[in-house]
Amino acid sequence: MIMERWRATYRLLKYSTFRSFSNYNNSRTFSSERIGSTSCRIQGRSFSSVATTVQRNPLFSSINSDDISYFKDILGDRGVVQDELALVAANTDWMHKYKGSSKLLLQPRSTEEVSQILKYCNSRSLAVVPQGGNTGLVGGSVPVFDEVIINLGSMNKILSFDKVSGILVCEAGCILENLITFLDIQGFIMPLDLGAKGSCQIGGNVSTNAGGLRLLRYGSLHGSVLGLEAVLANGTVLDMLGTLRKDNTGYDLKHLFIGSEGSLGIVTKVSILTPPKLSSVNTAFLACNDYASCQNLLLEAKKKLGEILSAFEFLDSDAMGLVLKHLDGVRNPLPPSVHNFYILIETTGSNESFDRENLEAFLLHSVESGLVTDGVLAQDINQASSFWHIREGLPEALMKAGAVYKYDLSLPLEKMYDLVEEMRAQLDPKAKVVAYGHLGDGNLHLNISAPEYDDKILAKIEPFVYEWTSKNRGSISAEHGLGLMKANKIHYSKSPETVQLMFSIKKLLDPNGILNPYKVLPSTLFS
Amino acid sequence: MIMERWRATYRLLKYSTFRSFSNYNNSRTFSSERIGSTSCRIQGRSFSSVATTVQRNPLFSSINSDDISYFKDILGDRGVVQDELALVAANTDWMHKYKGSSKLLLQPRSTEEVSQILKYCNSRSLAVVPQGGNTGLVGGSVPVFDEVIINLGSMNKILSFDKVSGILVCEAGCILENLITFLDIQGFIMPLDLGAKGSCQIGGNVSTNAGGLRLLRYGSLHGSVLGLEAVLANGTVLDMLGTLRKDNTGYDLKHLFIGSEGSLGIVTKVSILTPPKLSSVNTAFLACNDYASCQNLLLEAKKKLGEILSAFEFLDSDAMGLVLKHLDGVRNPLPPSVHNFYILIETTGSNESFDRENLEAFLLHSVESGLVTDGVLAQDINQASSFWHIREGLPEALMKAGAVYKYDLSLPLEKMYDLVEEMRAQLDPKAKVVAYGHLGDGNLHLNISAPEYDDKILAKIEPFVYEWTSKNRGSISAEHGLGLMKANKIHYSKSPETVQLMFSIKKLLDPNGILNPYKVLPSTLFS
Repeated sequence: MIMERWRATYRLLKYSTFRSFSNYNNSRTFSSERIGSTSCRIQGRSFSSVATTVQRNPLFSSINSDDISYFKDILGDRGVVQDELALVAANTDWMHKYKGSSKLLLQPRSTEEVSQILKYCNSRSLAVVPQGGNTGLVGGSVPVFDEVIINLGSMNKILSFDKVSGILVCEAGCILENLITFLDIQGFIMPLDLGAKGSCQIGGNVSTNAGGLRLLRYGSLHGSVLGLEAVLANGTVLDMLGTLRKDNTGYDLKHLFIGSEGSLGIVTKVSILTPPKLSSVNTAFLACNDYASCQNLLLEAKKKLGEILSAFEFLDSDAMGLVLKHLDGVRNPLPPSVHNFYILIETTGSNESFDRENLEAFLLHSVESGLVTDGVLAQDINQASSFWHIREGLPEALMKAGAVYKYDLSLPLEKMYDLVEEMRAQLDPKAKVVAYGHLGDGNLHLNISAPEYDDKILAKIEPFVYEWTSKNRGSISAEHGLGLMKANKIHYSKSPETVQLMFSIKKLLDPNGILNPYKVLPSTLFS
Repeated sequence: MIMERWRATYRLLKYSTFRSFSNYNNSRTFSSERIGSTSCRIQGRSFSSVATTVQRNPLFSSINSDDISYFKDILGDRGVVQDELALVAANTDWMHKYKGSSKLLLQPRSTEEVSQILKYCNSRSLAVVPQGGNTGLVGGSVPVFDEVIINLGSMNKILSFDKVSGILVCEAGCILENLITFLDIQGFIMPLDLGAKGSCQIGGNVSTNAGGLRLLRYGSLHGSVLGLEAVLANGTVLDMLGTLRKDNTGYDLKHLFIGSEGSLGIVTKVSILTPPKLSSVNTAFLACNDYASCQNLLLEAKKKLGEILSAFEFLDSDAMGLVLKHLDGVRNPLPPSVHNFYILIETTGSNESFDRENLEAFLLHSVESGLVTDGVLAQDINQASSFWHIREGLPEALMKAGAVYKYDLSLPLEKMYDLVEEMRAQLDPKAKVVAYGHLGDGNLHLNISAPEYDDKILAKIEPFVYEWTSKNRGSISAEHGLGLMKANKIHYSKSPETVQLMFSIKKLLDPNGILNPYKVLPSTLFS
């Protein structure tokens, strides 16, 4: 009976944003995960209030005319931007939450130029902010005060691609979508994909250890980045640009630069292992009665779908209710009955008929065993797109519903939903707790939706959420980094000894602290 | 015609060492890769000649009776080993190439004990060697002089396993095979597998970033290790034992301890992501006319077999000739004609019939397109085992053939075989150049087989091989690390700036240099 529904055709849904097939352009686009994870509205911070939480380091110099002349000598007039309008954009993050007051944007075209800039800035104690596509969510890519902005966008060449090994080498300023397009022609894909792909740069992706939509299948950048070139604060160029899958000659230092948000060095080139593009994609939308079933379904999916499983997303009934209420044209693909949890499963493989049969057999088994209470299997791209739209439309629905307090957490799977329930239990019913996320990655997007922002609600959420996450050895920032926003919250996820060693390494690599100051590490360490 | 052969049954071959199905025991077993990569006979070094290349650091203290008393207070009599026979084994590597003269072996049972030991040794300037299963090939796991041996074997508890996420947490002294057995019952596998699994310990695997047989499919430990606990030289315990797939809160310091061969800290606990066990394994043995076809076949295999490809090994005709000549009972599964290259392909997936059809279709296509000139598909475990035996029997055949100069290199795929041909061109024909390896990983095992060791031959090989590897941005140690053997050769694969930064980090984490001295980094840095 259920299996008939798997084969049913759902033509009533009309969205066409299925992420694997949509037409992206080079304008700034942002994924639901990115929008969904910002807490820009939570704390109601204005530009000024953010700035006042941090004091400008008085040891840093200010730009003078000699500096400008020097940079023009190195970069030419074109590489030295003082235009106010351009600076406003570069000083401001895309959420308009953080705003710096830099008077200078530099656009190097080569590693050598980056090296010359940093060597000079270091000698002059001029603080700098490395900037890629400026699509971050934690205030990591814009100045806090008057730091010099070094934008890598002019270093955007693909240097080599080996079709046998799938290894791509490129400059840091390459826009992710351009790399995806290039690889598509070669029959390969990038091991990471983000909604922000039209703007974000690979150097920024690597520097922030971007997670994105393919992590479940292809793992983190610590696994797929094979090599890096990075420039240290004193201008030293570190050539770690290996293109080898195996290399055990000494400490693998590239990992220091993956996820350190530009605070240890500026990534200038990247070597990355790209997987072959596979032709078969299947998508199913399922319902489960309880969270335990969701967990068990994931376990079964990993066993039965194993090598073809590429996404395992979940949302709860409050999340579904919100989407249905606030997003035009969205319908629940399942008959109008109340389910407690919904799961979106995607498989990606090389054989259409095999994969399809495999998924159908898995779904049938899941229904028979009672893990799944209802479900549909997309018959075409439009249907798949409509399923994804429910999941990806959640942040928009939340924004339309009123005020929203947003948290992006990694938690042990078995405890993840306990937090949601505990949160519900201690909040007034007018504050609705809505949960969704990448169950396959252990990544929960916890949202509290309320009619309006209210400090009393916030006081019941924070520090409770951070403390709960810490107690359960979770991460207070699953994929967005710490930046300025969470630099002082690092202790919720990292031990004092570990943070102390991070600081020692920061001091070792950047003794004057010029690289992306005020970010990542707590300000108390520097005082 | 060819396809008929795919289905042919090869019952004439009688080996039963197929690695996925053989019965391992806890005695020391070593893979062909490990044996195949040692150059212990190349340089003809004796124990004494190895030791004389390094001077004992005069700043290190020597053990006295007070030290022994202190350690007995911490560890009890049982944890303090001074027995001569036990010390001989712990002082000697398994190849009997390196031998130290330590008078003391400590066996801590907890992280706290490791911490107390190191804190004390650091304050007393007593050098230490962390030791796991002592299965390394580069002299990294035994003392050079009288360093205190800290063996982790007593810390062998599995701490937790989450069947939904597949995340295993265990102590560093767990023997790899025990973890594999434990996971097998749970329906999971370790993401790494080594011939040395019966002895090697997970802490040692992580500390040496062991590659092994599953790297093509599951990537390196930098991707699959989710967290670590490590003890620094001064006794500080770094709790980085996260169990999360996503955690972007500060610098990911665990990577410093993956592959640094115990020279930055002692790994005491490991958290690792384990893949589900898949039921379907297929193996084919193919012939190609030229190296370009091997490369193209790999490209096609990655595209067509994509998610199920789990091994892609190659050997050249000289390698095949050697195996057939020197190993009893081995036959070429292909008819007796001369092929230039042989390829072993393995797939691992979740659906027997789908995977089989997929592989058969791929093989048919490869034959039709001319990439493959002949081939067989194993019909059962014994046949698969016989194919693997050809590949894995190579080191044994080489040993039987006479003197052998061995190199374990990572090289860009497109250039890998150029080195073999250049090597052949400049050597006298009595020195036979034999090539095989993990083509899918870009890992070449280059062997020069000669009637006897001859300095004239060696002079034509070294430093040529290292220089050629360096010029082509390869690695002089694909998976075995540098240890004592290659510490002074690091510059062939790493830039001076990178090595300098490694040294700075070593000084930062271990200012007295007590952790695994004389290893990994060049002695010139310490003088």
